Amino acid sequence: MSSSEKQLIERIVTDWARAVSAGDRRGILAHHSDDVLMFDFPATAQGIEAYDRTWDFFFTDPKGPIIFALRDLHTTAGHDVAFVACDVHCDGTSAGPLDFRLTVGLEKRHGAWVVTHEHHSVPTVEEKFIET
Amino acid sequence: MSSSEKQLIERIVTDWARAVSAGDRRGILAHHSDDVLMFDFPATAQGIEAYDRTWDFFFTDPKGPIIFALRDLHTTAGHDVAFVACDVHCDGTSAGPLDFRLTVGLEKRHGAWVVTHEHHSVPTVEEKFIET
Repeated sequence: MSSSEKQLIERIVTDWARAVSAGDRRGILAHHSDDVLMFDFPATAQGIEAYDRTWDFFFTDPKGPIIFALRDLHTTAGHDVAFVACDVHCDGTSAGPLDFRLTVGLEKRHGAWVVTHEHHSVPTVEEKFIET
Repeated sequence: MSSSEKQLIERIVTDWARAVSAGDRRGILAHHSDDVLMFDFPATAQGIEAYDRTWDFFFTDPKGPIIFALRDLHTTAGHDVAFVACDVHCDGTSAGPLDFRLTVGLEKRHGAWVVTHEHHSVPTVEEKFIET
């Protein structure tokens, strides 16, 4: 694994988190692919427009400054594909404080890294599964 | 993306799912790295032994034949890193039928693909978040 690629990947992901904290909707999308596949808490969103809309809820009726802090990054950066797994501490939204897990998948396209996949989830216990 | 690498990745992941359906605990671990990082439904497990234990619950008091079927695979296979995002339909465990989302991260080490990350989650609604 190239350490400079790893640094680049982590900068993209931490810049994205900083854009979330700042409510910078354009910055959130800056390195995302048109065909991004998002496993959001409640639903799956495919495509950059659907992905963008998943953030509407996030910035509705904030309780205070948004905190969206990545912790304990595990980064696997290859030649042309990479993924990052980490914990996220979030606060300030209408949902209150929340700790969740995040996996971000990236691909190098035309020489530039883009985020093509995100998987966000909160820990659940069996009783809290949604019946299917 | 090399289509033969993509086929190889998908075979590893579908063979793993087949091992789950068969209750083949050894087969489940066959292509996993010693340092695998698992975001399981309720908790995070690090390392192959902790990962192995996450399956104990799965095979306790089954209600019938285990079904663990991957659907709608989105595979991104690079030169040395890959990830797969898909839906999973599961049935036959004590938890009853369950549909969830899965992301699997792989890395090529010493010429062989190994699974280094899994992220399993069920869709949640805000009220079902575990308070932190």
